[in-house]
Amino acid sequence: MDIIKVVLFLILRNQNFNFSPEFVDGLRSKCPKSVDRIRDVSRIWMGTAPKSKSRCNLALGIFVFSGIILLPVLLPVASTDHSIKAANTTSKGTFNELDRLSMGQVGNSGPRLWAFIVATYWVSVVTYYLLWKAYKHVSELRAKALMSPEIRADQFVILVRDIPPAAVGQSKKEQIDSFFRAIYPDTFYRSMVVTNNKEVNKIYEELEGYKKKLARAEAIYEESKKTNPDALKPSHKTGFLGIVGEKVDSIEFYNDKIKELIQQLEVEQKLTLKEKQQSSALVFFNKRVAAASASQNLHAPIVDRWTVIDAPEPRQLIWTNLPKTFYERIIRQYVVYVVVFLTIFFYMIPIGFISALTTLDNLVKLLPFLKPVVNQKAIKTVLEAYLPQLALIIFLALLPKFLMFLSKAEGIPSESHVTRAASGKYFYFSVLNVFIGVTLGGTLFSSFKSIENDPNSIFRVLAESLPQNATFFLTFVALKFFVGYGLELSRIVPLIIFHLKKKYLCKIEAEIKEAWAPGDLGYATRFPSDMLIMTIVLCYSVIAPIILPFGVVYFGLGWLLLRNQALKVYVPSFESYGRMWPHIHTRMLATLILYQVTMCGYFGVKKFAPTPVLFPLPIFSLIFAFICQKKFRRFFVSPALEVISHELKEVPNMDIVFRSFIPPCLSAGKSDDHQFEDALSHVSKTGSSSV
Amino acid sequence: MDIIKVVLFLILRNQNFNFSPEFVDGLRSKCPKSVDRIRDVSRIWMGTAPKSKSRCNLALGIFVFSGIILLPVLLPVASTDHSIKAANTTSKGTFNELDRLSMGQVGNSGPRLWAFIVATYWVSVVTYYLLWKAYKHVSELRAKALMSPEIRADQFVILVRDIPPAAVGQSKKEQIDSFFRAIYPDTFYRSMVVTNNKEVNKIYEELEGYKKKLARAEAIYEESKKTNPDALKPSHKTGFLGIVGEKVDSIEFYNDKIKELIQQLEVEQKLTLKEKQQSSALVFFNKRVAAASASQNLHAPIVDRWTVIDAPEPRQLIWTNLPKTFYERIIRQYVVYVVVFLTIFFYMIPIGFISALTTLDNLVKLLPFLKPVVNQKAIKTVLEAYLPQLALIIFLALLPKFLMFLSKAEGIPSESHVTRAASGKYFYFSVLNVFIGVTLGGTLFSSFKSIENDPNSIFRVLAESLPQNATFFLTFVALKFFVGYGLELSRIVPLIIFHLKKKYLCKIEAEIKEAWAPGDLGYATRFPSDMLIMTIVLCYSVIAPIILPFGVVYFGLGWLLLRNQALKVYVPSFESYGRMWPHIHTRMLATLILYQVTMCGYFGVKKFAPTPVLFPLPIFSLIFAFICQKKFRRFFVSPALEVISHELKEVPNMDIVFRSFIPPCLSAGKSDDHQFEDALSHVSKTGSSSV
Repeated sequence: MDIIKVVLFLILRNQNFNFSPEFVDGLRSKCPKSVDRIRDVSRIWMGTAPKSKSRCNLALGIFVFSGIILLPVLLPVASTDHSIKAANTTSKGTFNELDRLSMGQVGNSGPRLWAFIVATYWVSVVTYYLLWKAYKHVSELRAKALMSPEIRADQFVILVRDIPPAAVGQSKKEQIDSFFRAIYPDTFYRSMVVTNNKEVNKIYEELEGYKKKLARAEAIYEESKKTNPDALKPSHKTGFLGIVGEKVDSIEFYNDKIKELIQQLEVEQKLTLKEKQQSSALVFFNKRVAAASASQNLHAPIVDRWTVIDAPEPRQLIWTNLPKTFYERIIRQYVVYVVVFLTIFFYMIPIGFISALTTLDNLVKLLPFLKPVVNQKAIKTVLEAYLPQLALIIFLALLPKFLMFLSKAEGIPSESHVTRAASGKYFYFSVLNVFIGVTLGGTLFSSFKSIENDPNSIFRVLAESLPQNATFFLTFVALKFFVGYGLELSRIVPLIIFHLKKKYLCKIEAEIKEAWAPGDLGYATRFPSDMLIMTIVLCYSVIAPIILPFGVVYFGLGWLLLRNQALKVYVPSFESYGRMWPHIHTRMLATLILYQVTMCGYFGVKKFAPTPVLFPLPIFSLIFAFICQKKFRRFFVSPALEVISHELKEVPNMDIVFRSFIPPCLSAGKSDDHQFEDALSHVSKTGSSSV
Repeated sequence: MDIIKVVLFLILRNQNFNFSPEFVDGLRSKCPKSVDRIRDVSRIWMGTAPKSKSRCNLALGIFVFSGIILLPVLLPVASTDHSIKAANTTSKGTFNELDRLSMGQVGNSGPRLWAFIVATYWVSVVTYYLLWKAYKHVSELRAKALMSPEIRADQFVILVRDIPPAAVGQSKKEQIDSFFRAIYPDTFYRSMVVTNNKEVNKIYEELEGYKKKLARAEAIYEESKKTNPDALKPSHKTGFLGIVGEKVDSIEFYNDKIKELIQQLEVEQKLTLKEKQQSSALVFFNKRVAAASASQNLHAPIVDRWTVIDAPEPRQLIWTNLPKTFYERIIRQYVVYVVVFLTIFFYMIPIGFISALTTLDNLVKLLPFLKPVVNQKAIKTVLEAYLPQLALIIFLALLPKFLMFLSKAEGIPSESHVTRAASGKYFYFSVLNVFIGVTLGGTLFSSFKSIENDPNSIFRVLAESLPQNATFFLTFVALKFFVGYGLELSRIVPLIIFHLKKKYLCKIEAEIKEAWAPGDLGYATRFPSDMLIMTIVLCYSVIAPIILPFGVVYFGLGWLLLRNQALKVYVPSFESYGRMWPHIHTRMLATLILYQVTMCGYFGVKKFAPTPVLFPLPIFSLIFAFICQKKFRRFFVSPALEVISHELKEVPNMDIVFRSFIPPCLSAGKSDDHQFEDALSHVSKTGSSSV
């Protein structure tokens, strides 16, 4: 009960408290265009707002429509059936009123089961309808975003990989230019060969570090001069951690270092541009329709050479992955898949142990000194309800970083794609380990033998175990939305971190802004954990319809909340024009099929003779998936020319487009183009500043 | 023996006898460009010559390289092993010497089996190497053909299907033109809306029929005037079959009819062009690189609208299939697949009966009056060897037409694609029914029970049955190359038909030429039957290596023969730029995998402990298939821009390109453009005549 109070308290405080106007202004001055764009064209900001909106909307819609029919029909049907007396569930004491409302209550092979069959179909039909509408809607949003008359640098560029070795006496640049100029004589603008920037990046980062330190030292000096006009210039020791070594005047020292490094950087830049060219390039076109067309064309008769894709935004390019060759990428991909597979399946064992350990009785046995605490009734209730789930939630928090690392290792060229790949992996992990793992967890060892004998029996075993775990997942969903959304809305953790940083670390304005920056929505973990809730609620929707209101609350609150967060708090770190959606759609369908197969198994366990009327459902889902794939998918892979051929606001300044793709380590330090840095880090700004 | 003599006799006569110079010239005057092109650019004539060459070369190479190692090694190994005494084969009397040379002769689990394991690997490696080389070679040939500086109309055109309904007040043509002009303002030339030509085509064909009859009547009149200057004008009766009804002057009557029909045709042409527009169009570009690029681009955000592919040649367009909608095509495809599947599996039953019936003993039992004939030793030998096979060959001749019809019903827009589709179906039919069907045929009913119990045992059963059928297939291959190539080279059947036609039907020059026309190579049946031989020889290559020389002779003769036939006899009816090859490649690999799996099964039957060393082979094949697919496949789907952007000989005359696509029924009869007909039937001619 206390937990709930705390959560409500946090919600009521609202994030306005944390993010007072000056911080919002701070954000704006940092990346004004981004924020404005979110506000103004929030509808086309597919990477974030409308996506979350649609998704929450979609799940919400599914559960609302399902609930409207299922709750008034199934609950009375279930609760008035008394053919089974002894309720056989894992919940002890607290929730067993709930069991009265579930399908487990209905006698085997009774005519009342027909209501549940119809309900299963109803949920599927609602899901198909809403998925279709959502896909169409997102497709339209993507079209709107792509046809926007604003100039966006990435729409003029393609990424070319697997360039064969140049002929003798021909430079890489000449080779690429002559290749593309021959094919696109009118629209080819120029090319940028991808270089190995490891060395130059190192120097650049060192330089940037000293620049920051210099600014900081100057700020400290200014500050101290204000109070004491004769303050000493700041100084530090050059040795380890500033503790040992010669004592120097910081400002002078940093200035010297910066001068030295700028020279080094220039030498290294020249060397890199000349000697470290890789077999990959960015090719620029002076029309966006030309670039969109080029990104879809086959260029060389040997298909694994001169492979092209449309370039992502400069800020999400992963330079180190660009020169990876065709087969290297494929091999890396499969190796990663194997690693992920092993991860998913070997994590099941620890999860099993953890869920076996973290029952209250076990805990008391293992840690006897807890006994007096645990025996108090209030604490006992809370612990009993939340202990196993907490272990699970903490456990899941460890994984995303690893999956992001693995996805990056696949050789994917853009951040947004890496995020998609990681979230997909995390989704399968969640469903397999949390949903199936926990469901079977209790009966894992007993059912292991029967699965071994007949692998197909997994669905039967799953179906048998489902009703027993209904209350577990009910509390899981409830906990997720109380604690999860509470933390999300209050942003209490970032707030504390920010205040700590501000107090002890940040000295100058820029640093405070940096400490404040809220980051992006974090798709890689947010989407799979929402999908896990979706899976749980969907799979229990017919078996224990009482879970539906919980799902509705979860996704309803999520919609309100994330809409606000996405529009007003988070700063998106990339824009993929809605390419996330096909991933979500596929996984929604995977969830739906899991639900349908489980229901088939569950009715089978109930020994209900007309169970085969459910068998066409998974086939319908596959056909539905096939049609959606044919109708919508390719547009999310390549831009449609009808859309991209819309008029631009003005003739693009190709020089700015080109410069926006130069990585900072190569553009920085040059005397005449201080603007480069700006151009690179905020492409949207340069895009519109050419007005 | 007599059969063989007849065959040799036919071969020695050669086709020079049949195709005397005047006929070759006749062919030339009919379609001079085609013949010249075959001669001159035979290397790029991928649809026919180099394909057959490569294919025969390839199979030949595989068997020659395999034979070099296998024959000298395996034959002594097999024949010197006497551990199994009682040879258990189906061959009685005639061929049982051969059984001594097969793997069945080698004792179970003896160390000699290692030689056969190595041989299995050797054959696979040789196949991989040669398949790879062949794919690369064909890919280069396709590139050469595509980059040819000659103007080919189909390279400037794309086929657009699934055009959504036009806005109110907008004609289809306006809709299409404005859509493509917006996307390709510089390169779009014009569009041709596909119309429903059923009615107009009917009138056109009637008209052409009367024109032919008129020419014929005039020729007869001329002829008779020569001998008798006062000869009567030819006349006929208008009623049924020219037997009843009014007697009329033929020439006058036909002239009247033609005049009448020309008027009708003009009216119908106008009506068709205006009222019968379909949701499909041909779109013309003034640069071939623009067309090639457009054919690969996604045009509309809803992927199943405005779908594009590169247009086939005008002569191979199947107009009736063009307006079929996206989902209609998909549904038709799956329906056809189901029908083909049923065909393949229900034909097995009649084949089983036929092969059971057509043993000599059965025949004598059923038809006792044959007894005195059959009992003669010479006839008996021949019948015994060839009876079952003949039944099979005749049986197979019934199928191709049906498969062509089915493939056309899929909604495929070009003849060459229909041919590919039909040949693929026929291949699976051949392998399943002839190879597997016959192999299991003998033991079908005995093995049916064990397969029913465990479906995986099919490979074991197959492996067990293989050696028993070695001699059957040996004679099958031999018969194929003696009778098949004999008939092919002598072209005795077409010769007889031609002479009959010339004597009794043909009156004028054009008719004689038409009767003579040799047609094209007939891929739909020729390729699958060659592949069947390939399958048989490959699967027996290690079990009974003596089959390899037969394979070498079959494909060696085939190479010599078909090279000649393709270059000098047949007139290709379409050019697909080598798109047949990926189909052949895939089926070669399917054959190879069948061989490898069978060998695994066979060694398993032999209870040879190290059999698992063979298990990686099918996996290698799958990886090989994957790599080939990635490296070469897409180029055979879309033209690579690097290739297509090569300079043309001259600026294309777009009007001629456009007119070449007008179907004859719509272009004919107009006063000012008699050239249209020409333009349509021989696109290559118009292409070069614009020089």
